Amino acid sequence: MLTRIDHIGIACYDLDVTVEFYRRTYGFEDVHVEVNEEQGVREAMLKINDTGDGAASYLQLIQPIRDDSPVAKWMAKNGEGVHHIAFGTDRSVQKEADYIADEGVRVLYDTPRKGSMGSLINFLHPKDCHGVLTELVQKG
Amino acid sequence: MLTRIDHIGIACYDLDVTVEFYRRTYGFEDVHVEVNEEQGVREAMLKINDTGDGAASYLQLIQPIRDDSPVAKWMAKNGEGVHHIAFGTDRSVQKEADYIADEGVRVLYDTPRKGSMGSLINFLHPKDCHGVLTELVQKG
Repeated sequence: MLTRIDHIGIACYDLDVTVEFYRRTYGFEDVHVEVNEEQGVREAMLKINDTGDGAASYLQLIQPIRDDSPVAKWMAKNGEGVHHIAFGTDRSVQKEADYIADEGVRVLYDTPRKGSMGSLINFLHPKDCHGVLTELVQKG
Repeated sequence: MLTRIDHIGIACYDLDVTVEFYRRTYGFEDVHVEVNEEQGVREAMLKINDTGDGAASYLQLIQPIRDDSPVAKWMAKNGEGVHHIAFGTDRSVQKEADYIADEGVRVLYDTPRKGSMGSLINFLHPKDCHGVLTELVQKG
């Protein structure tokens, strides 16, 4: 079952500048930064609020670190902006993805991959989700 | 102060079909539907989780009800997808907007307007927010 908005993924040209924008403009200070080599991005998780399932909701700011990363290709077309949304699940992300695949939605990876802060993730095809690239997150 | 992700605003062609997609695929059942004549949309709020500030996070599905509504114009260019993100504030939305305007971000309305479920809202210009149309919400 999906129990929270885990994060909103926002693609940006310069991670440090964008983190500073969110800090200065809104006061979001709780920031975790890491590089995800597999996804080809450097990313910052800005915690916004606690959630009723004992986890939290974040903004995930994403800067591509190579031109052939999926996010770089998306930005070449769309520029900066909301790239995806992510829901947290209370079961294994594999089980959640299998359940959703049974509803006729394409799941992008055969097996879950590494997400932010030790999480396991998978993605659902935006064309099967009314235009929204949708991520499933099992907390790390 | 911004205390939560209030909602993610998602533009869609057919509200009923999209609400049913989110219900069938993810099990999101808690739905409030209303028409916002001023914004020119019919919208459904799908509650996803409670938030630490005593409120909740929603998906807001939006279908334009006239061709000259801002969402209809956005969809003519972008199709279905994430249209905006919204943060909840614990002070008046006017105060929050004034504070943010002082940081050099353009606020779209001179005075707050009516949002979902009796809320008061304003928007920040996406060009000043790294490509993200950003809404401020004072709970109704």
